[in-house]
Order: sequence, then C-alpha cells, then structure tokens
Amino acid sequence: MPPSSLAASPLVRLRVDLAYDGGGFRGFARQASQRTVQGVLEDALSVLAGVPVATTVSGRTDAGVHAALNVVHCDVPAGSRLTVDLDRARKALDKLCGPQITVWRVRRVPSTFDARFSATRRRYRYRLCDATAMAPLWRHDTWHVGPPALDVDAMEAGGAHLLGEHDFSSFCRRADDQHLVRRIDLLAVRREPGGLVVVRVEGKAFCHQMVRSVTACLVRVGQGKRPPDWVREALHARDRHAVGSIAPPHGLTLVDVSFARPSAQ
Amino acid sequence: MPPSSLAASPLVRLRVDLAYDGGGFRGFARQASQRTVQGVLEDALSVLAGVPVATTVSGRTDAGVHAALNVVHCDVPAGSRLTVDLDRARKALDKLCGPQITVWRVRRVPSTFDARFSATRRRYRYRLCDATAMAPLWRHDTWHVGPPALDVDAMEAGGAHLLGEHDFSSFCRRADDQHLVRRIDLLAVRREPGGLVVVRVEGKAFCHQMVRSVTACLVRVGQGKRPPDWVREALHARDRHAVGSIAPPHGLTLVDVSFARPSAQ
Repeated sequence: MPPSSLAASPLVRLRVDLAYDGGGFRGFARQASQRTVQGVLEDALSVLAGVPVATTVSGRTDAGVHAALNVVHCDVPAGSRLTVDLDRARKALDKLCGPQITVWRVRRVPSTFDARFSATRRRYRYRLCDATAMAPLWRHDTWHVGPPALDVDAMEAGGAHLLGEHDFSSFCRRADDQHLVRRIDLLAVRREPGGLVVVRVEGKAFCHQMVRSVTACLVRVGQGKRPPDWVREALHARDRHAVGSIAPPHGLTLVDVSFARPSAQ
Repeated sequence: MPPSSLAASPLVRLRVDLAYDGGGFRGFARQASQRTVQGVLEDALSVLAGVPVATTVSGRTDAGVHAALNVVHCDVPAGSRLTVDLDRARKALDKLCGPQITVWRVRRVPSTFDARFSATRRRYRYRLCDATAMAPLWRHDTWHVGPPALDVDAMEAGGAHLLGEHDFSSFCRRADDQHLVRRIDLLAVRREPGGLVVVRVEGKAFCHQMVRSVTACLVRVGQGKRPPDWVREALHARDRHAVGSIAPPHGLTLVDVSFARPSAQ
C-alpha cells in the first residue's frame, strides 16, 4: 500500500513484547539525540509500518536498567507490512532492533488494551553479589557489593515493613505534584550460589527509582549498618533524605508484566 | 626489597585461580600486540612481583572462549609484594586485571604443582539456545542456533559414541605431529528454561577446538540433519572433513579444573 493510502487506512492495535540489555541505552523513554529503547523501537516500527509510530510502555525503565519482559502497544495502519504476517513482523522488528533488544512476540490486541493502564502487576528483580570476587559476565546485571556477607533474613524482615499500601515518598524521586502512594504485594530476598543475593519486588505500579531505593535500604540492613526496623522509620519519614543513595541501575531487571485477562486476550 | 635483590631471591610457586569474559581477548595465550588473558595477567603479576613473571595454564582457551575457572602457576621471588599477603595480592591482581578478568584466589603451592600437567580433569560447558528469540544478555555466552527445537535425547545418543578413549583426529585442528588420542569421561546434554540446551563435556585433556567441534556435530544431530550413529562414523573417519564446521567460541566456557590431591594441596 502506498504511504498516502496507509495514512488513511484504519488503525489496528499491536502489542509488542520485548527484552533489552539496558547497558546500551539512555533508558527506555525517547529523548532527542540519545540512544533509547523507545527511540530504536519506534524508528524500527515506523520503517515497517510506513508511517510514524508512537508507543506506550508498561515499564518506563531508567538508563542502565534491563528488561527480561517489557510490553508496549502501538497503533499502526491495517494494511502495513507489520500487520499482514505478525510472525514475519516480529522477525523483521527483532532484526532492526537487535542485538541489545529482543522482540519476543507481536500480536493484535483490542483497542481497549493499554500497555500502561491495563497492566495489573509488574515484577522486578535486583541481583546483588556479596562474594569477595564476582564472575566477569555478572558485571552486566549484578551489583557487586562485596563483603560483609548480606544477612538475608534481616533484609526480608526490613522489607516486610514495606508490604502493603504506603506513601513511598522516602523511596521515590519526587516529581512536584505526583501521588506517591503505591502498594508492594511481594518482597522476597533469596540467596543463590556464587554469593548471589536476589531481591524480588512485585506490585501493580512503582514510582521513579523506587525499587533501587528499596534495594539500597535493604543492603544497608543486610550489612548490619541499620536494624530491620529502620526501614519502617525511613518509610514513615516520607522524606527522601531518610533513605540516602540508591542502588546502581545495572543490577535491576523488569522481569515480567501481567495484564487483566480480557485486555491481554 | 629492591629489584636487584628480588631477582636473586629464592622463588616460590603461586597458584592463581581466575575467570574471564573471553569476549574481550584474542584468547588466553600471550601474543605480540594482541590483548590476551595471559598478556594482561603476566603484565599485572610482573608489576606486583617487581620482576618479569611467566605463567603456565591449565586450559589454553581460544579467542572468545570464557572461563568460570582456569588455573595458572608461576614462580615469583619470595620477598616480592605478591607473596607477603596473598589476600592483598589477590585484590591487587584482581584490580589490575579487571573487569573482564576476575582473580578468585592466590595461594602458595609446592614446586611440584603444575597447572598444566597436574590437572586431572577439565570440565567444559557449551550453551545453545533453540528458541525463536533469545534474551539479549545471553548473546555474550550462548550460541543462538534458533529453531528447529534440538532433540536432546538424540544429541546424548550421538555423544555416547565419543565416550572413552579414541583418536579424535576428526574433531581437532591438527598440528602436524600431534598425538590426538583423548578420553572423554562425561558427555551430557540437558534442556533448561528459555530454550537453553547445555552440553557438558569432561575429560583429562582436550585437543584444539575439540569441544566446539563435538558441539557442532551434536547440533547437527539435534536438528535431525544427521542420525546419532553418524557421530561414530565421523569419529572413525579420523578426518576433520568428516565433521565440518565448528561451533562459535562465545558459547563455550571452561567451568572447572581438578587436580590430584597432593599437588593441589
């Protein structure tokens, strides 16, 4: 279809599931003259659609943060190359965006599906290593905190204060008028071989830098610098200064996004 | 100790355990004007020892091949910075060689210990992915063969022909006068989540490119291009052309080296 007809053609909504190595990008969100995931993805979608394509994402990850699964939706002309054969569209998109972005799947969804607002749960994982030395390939997705050994039980006890609905002002980079009440549904800390300690956090939505801020707090508790109850105090302070520095981005991965059944098909 | 006295000082033998991301090196072995693991390691050892230090290694890995554990030995002057405090020596060495090389441990060993000849077992792992799409961070250490799905049972059946002592001429890059009889003690193929198929190979010693050549054969069998018995035919041919191309280096990792008790202390 020629571009003029494409622009007039009815739109269909696509859902694109992707992963990326955050190391190569200045975050997800498109920024002028910066290499971002959204920039690379929208450029590729626009080439294949034959018209400019804008995307909406489930998890707007920061610079350096990875995704094992992140979801976008976009509207493209019904007659474009993207919609004729979704499997070929996936392959073409994957090739245009790779190798730092992987496109898992492209599918048609109803126009009621919204990658941002239909998402019911977002799952994050933060990888820490408290061994003296760390395997070189881990440097891409693991924060090497080094010794002393993290007290995983203390970290979970500290994290338990954050479960449920709270005003997370102490853990978020504040935008002036933002509503910072969020709900954490799961916070688990597990030790694995090689000095690896994995923090998992799940909730419907998170505010900016919240998981990295929570992780930094838990590291302080795990190292014995603060008691587990300090996490509750920090939460109640509703002051970013009560928490201090945040964990570096490269240890964080958005691992999964869930949607309510009808919208996700 | 001043350099002149160091050179005259008695030598002690050190064992250095290390890991590396093979992606950043032209292989292990030192080469003029190429960045190699041995080059970086010997330069760092020489700085800390105050005299030139030469190393002998357990696994002389090729360009692009990783190590989760590889072992070297070297002889350094008894009074040098390297021998006074082995833990500090490890840290200093790790810092000088990082981040693509990790130094796990530095220890004193008897002069009978030889990283190459005292090694009784070398364990390799090759990671394959047969999923349509692969997680971006896997690109560093996994060969993305893609569909069709690998038949893991057929791969193990093919690999079983290689167990025990054989002339592996078909699977090795031949140096003219080399003895190519080797013994494979274990060859296992296991499927893991995410389309990952892991080939594990263990033996006392391997000839050049042998594991990558074996893996390429097993992939052909796993994809149904050859029956499992073809591996026996290829072995008996004692001809490199019977096997064909080899698997790329970045999927291969030397994961472990074992030593006879007395030498390894």
